[in-house]
Amino acid sequence: MSVTNLEELFQHELRDVLDAERQILKALPKMIKAAESEVLKAALTEHQGVTEEQVGRLETIFKSLDKAARGKHCKGMEGLLAEGSEMIEEEETSPTLDAAMIGAAQKVEHYEIAAYGTLVEYAKILGMDEAVELLSATLAEEKEADEKLSSVASELNLAAQEQTAE
Amino acid sequence: MSVTNLEELFQHELRDVLDAERQILKALPKMIKAAESEVLKAALTEHQGVTEEQVGRLETIFKSLDKAARGKHCKGMEGLLAEGSEMIEEEETSPTLDAAMIGAAQKVEHYEIAAYGTLVEYAKILGMDEAVELLSATLAEEKEADEKLSSVASELNLAAQEQTAE
Repeated sequence: MSVTNLEELFQHELRDVLDAERQILKALPKMIKAAESEVLKAALTEHQGVTEEQVGRLETIFKSLDKAARGKHCKGMEGLLAEGSEMIEEEETSPTLDAAMIGAAQKVEHYEIAAYGTLVEYAKILGMDEAVELLSATLAEEKEADEKLSSVASELNLAAQEQTAE
Repeated sequence: MSVTNLEELFQHELRDVLDAERQILKALPKMIKAAESEVLKAALTEHQGVTEEQVGRLETIFKSLDKAARGKHCKGMEGLLAEGSEMIEEEETSPTLDAAMIGAAQKVEHYEIAAYGTLVEYAKILGMDEAVELLSATLAEEKEADEKLSSVASELNLAAQEQTAE
């Protein structure tokens, strides 16, 4: 890759998270289709719109850097999504699969919380005020999405437990 | 995998995180060796001890379930660690590599925060009081480790920025 200073590291991480977001956009329709709970379907559908906006913010930052918005394959996100998609393929639609998908989605959210948290710190040090603003907005959304998933999870885990008791 | 109820999902996730922790234990010595900053070396070395204790807690839970402490290959952690190890192989020791490793380590911490957060919720619903206690202790440690890395990062990112300015 050749990353020898903070500016290059910032761009490297920006390309990583852009690819991660694009991978998420590809995975979301499958998750929405596999979800049994309407609440989960709605939460994932809403997140699809939010993710598209987040990609737009990244593209704005690339434009301000006068660079093409080209992602760099994100192996971390690939692994996280592979875990989720294996479950979707192997299991029938059920409250337990819904609970498992929420768990997988929260791992994805936490990847993004870590990635954007780091990017905001880099942008601050590099004095890139517009990027700080855009990346902070996304970071706040990712934290909000994680909390929303936690609250949906409370409901779905109970449904999965009832499935256990059946 | 066949996960049809919450108890099976709990065990599935427990095997996933056990494997993740074991992968981390294998990766940490390489990261410690590649770190330039003594503060980072110390933080990673301390985390090695904490991770060993966390594996011990997982083994206790498997014992209480009368199951062998057998991991299930965690693709998510594999991807996260692959990103970090690529950088270590490609780059020379430097403040920028240190900053990149901190970023990678925070992604690993966030994976664990999500995984243990989910496991604690499952264990609560399943009425597994000892597991709730053990998993909550690890969850608190992971959050603490993430905060510690953030504070080391503030220092290291500035050193990386000085490298930029050189």
